[in-house]
Amino acid sequence: MRCSVVAVGTELLLGQIVDTNSSWLGEQLASAGIDSLFQVKVGDNLGRIVATLRSTLEQADAIIICGGLGPTHDDITREAIAEIMGVELEMNDEVALVIDQLFTSRGRRMPQNNLRQAMVPKGAKIIEQRRGTAPGLICPVGEKVMYAVPGVPFELYEMFERAILPDLLARSGEASVIKSRVLRTWGDSESGLNERLVGVINELEKVGNPTLAFLASGWEGIKVRLTAKANTESQAIELLDIWDAKVREQVEDLVFGVDGQNMESVVLQNLRERKLTLGIAESVTGGLMAGRLTAIAGASDVFRGAIVSYDSEVKFELLSVSRGPVVSESAAKEMAVGVRKTLGSDIGLAVTGVAGPTEQDGVKVGTLCVGLAMPNGDVRSTTFSLPYGREQMRQFSVISALNFLRQSL
Amino acid sequence: MRCSVVAVGTELLLGQIVDTNSSWLGEQLASAGIDSLFQVKVGDNLGRIVATLRSTLEQADAIIICGGLGPTHDDITREAIAEIMGVELEMNDEVALVIDQLFTSRGRRMPQNNLRQAMVPKGAKIIEQRRGTAPGLICPVGEKVMYAVPGVPFELYEMFERAILPDLLARSGEASVIKSRVLRTWGDSESGLNERLVGVINELEKVGNPTLAFLASGWEGIKVRLTAKANTESQAIELLDIWDAKVREQVEDLVFGVDGQNMESVVLQNLRERKLTLGIAESVTGGLMAGRLTAIAGASDVFRGAIVSYDSEVKFELLSVSRGPVVSESAAKEMAVGVRKTLGSDIGLAVTGVAGPTEQDGVKVGTLCVGLAMPNGDVRSTTFSLPYGREQMRQFSVISALNFLRQSL
Repeated sequence: MRCSVVAVGTELLLGQIVDTNSSWLGEQLASAGIDSLFQVKVGDNLGRIVATLRSTLEQADAIIICGGLGPTHDDITREAIAEIMGVELEMNDEVALVIDQLFTSRGRRMPQNNLRQAMVPKGAKIIEQRRGTAPGLICPVGEKVMYAVPGVPFELYEMFERAILPDLLARSGEASVIKSRVLRTWGDSESGLNERLVGVINELEKVGNPTLAFLASGWEGIKVRLTAKANTESQAIELLDIWDAKVREQVEDLVFGVDGQNMESVVLQNLRERKLTLGIAESVTGGLMAGRLTAIAGASDVFRGAIVSYDSEVKFELLSVSRGPVVSESAAKEMAVGVRKTLGSDIGLAVTGVAGPTEQDGVKVGTLCVGLAMPNGDVRSTTFSLPYGREQMRQFSVISALNFLRQSL
Repeated sequence: MRCSVVAVGTELLLGQIVDTNSSWLGEQLASAGIDSLFQVKVGDNLGRIVATLRSTLEQADAIIICGGLGPTHDDITREAIAEIMGVELEMNDEVALVIDQLFTSRGRRMPQNNLRQAMVPKGAKIIEQRRGTAPGLICPVGEKVMYAVPGVPFELYEMFERAILPDLLARSGEASVIKSRVLRTWGDSESGLNERLVGVINELEKVGNPTLAFLASGWEGIKVRLTAKANTESQAIELLDIWDAKVREQVEDLVFGVDGQNMESVVLQNLRERKLTLGIAESVTGGLMAGRLTAIAGASDVFRGAIVSYDSEVKFELLSVSRGPVVSESAAKEMAVGVRKTLGSDIGLAVTGVAGPTEQDGVKVGTLCVGLAMPNGDVRSTTFSLPYGREQMRQFSVISALNFLRQSL
């Protein structure tokens, strides 16, 4: 079963709204074992919608069309569908009644243009509206099918789960399940990973299932995604477990998490398991690291707080750093010791560096010094040479420093 | 000029990454007066990429292809382009040298497969890589053109602005100049703005130039974009000035900045002009506000630093907040006074609130208390009721608090 998605709306093409519906549908389809072929965004233009539906339907068994079912003149998905089906639109009295009642129940008079939403291509089946005014449509085209749903996400989600997915599964007659697992890595390039995993990749290409892909995710590191197809969910998971282990055998040192985990959540969890609290001192990252750690719900049982010592005076006075140049490993160590003491945390982590645009005290842009004060009084430090660009350097600093802490635990 | 976007990557179809690149490109194209026809997502499958490029190029004058330029086996955009152009790939020695040097400068050995990124379709022009390892490509196909850029957003943005947009504009041969101005607003909904601007909008619909659009941008507020077309740049700017003034006449209180400005840069600039320094105390935002302020280059001449008092003990001990419930206007005031003193800044700004998922000490999720200690010893505070959702509530907190400071200056 191959299913494509067509998202209708000029506002999507103009970037005024990001099309998250297609992504959501792609995820749902994948986990139901249905292949996604294409996802297309097209504006509110009848000719182009019809052309898109026609060419998309040539290659797929099913299309889900999102949006363009509203009451206004630029909502023309119904007309496009009727043209593809080669039928007329006709008023569905039951739908009209429901829409009218919706308005009445909210104490409002129904504007006449709302009746457009009760127009249905002949031969199409209605997906009853439960959250909005527009019904969805199931429109057979020979052996194939087009589904139309409103673009409002929570209406779409509900109709997909209630009516579209069951219909798709009934049509596909296939019972196979597709499951993915993402291994999060940090510390090597995409090509470096590829080289270390070449044996696994060659083996996988022979067996064909699961598949492996690299997702370069900038300052989130490189993701290694395994996708397995099987008859049952547990068989798919078993396959993933086997190949997950083979991947880790080669790159165990780089894998810091799985699926929804990120460096922040992993570090917080590691600290939690060891019953250790963390305090941080930030200079170059200016609060970004604390901001990312506290984006994780439940950070408060581990994270004491941070001192953002952006001005050097704050380093000297509040963190007892020795006066002098402040981008060095010795300054980073003093910051770590100072913040551990000031915030009363078990561990002190500190970053100081140069984000640019210009170098500072002769230290190059991209230099990051990390200091770490451990519960036993041990103090260590390291220096990274990070990519240029203010935002990039700062984001890389956060994950590099947290990874240094993770490896030191 | 009609331009489509093709985003390449199975991870996009599977919904593991939301395709924000296309949306961003759509927005840029629109404000440059270039029509967007289709935006398509296709997986890492050579046959399907080629078919998509071919059918898309039939209808558009230009295509921007995002992604699939990395070094690994599933990065096949180069191969697809060569097939459409009907040419071979050849090694570009200069590109190879640059990639090799990038690795060397970071003290790493270049894995051989990185040379894949130096393979270029014959007849294509290189867009030099400045932020990553993969160069972009400008690939003529008869009178039409295909551009290829990496899928990593910050690499894509830079290449689009530096090389693709100028090339598109030169090709479009249009003599008229299109210029946009974005007025940044905070404090009212899209429909509220629409209501207050209805007179201006009606007037604009009569004259037809410039056009006005609302861009709802979540926690960045609502952007009001004016786009003017004229024979010369100065005429376009003159038009924008006239209508900018008419818009502001209606919503002056809501407009905080223009174009590339954001709330952080505006607040920093206002402080700079008044020669005032700022120190902040963050609880609920956990460093996010400091992180956003220090994302602005040059923040250091105004911003002293922050104390992220995530644990209540840090509030009591370091900021001298009275023991008791910590989400209240009185606690926010004490934090502001405390941080002003501890960091030695002219102004102290403090936020405390409940991001959820559950309420705290009987205070509802979404509550934000802001405290502000001014240079003259004046202390004020306010409370906001912000939208739910941890990330959303925290981001709204940052902009709400900074706007409170801006209005108090």
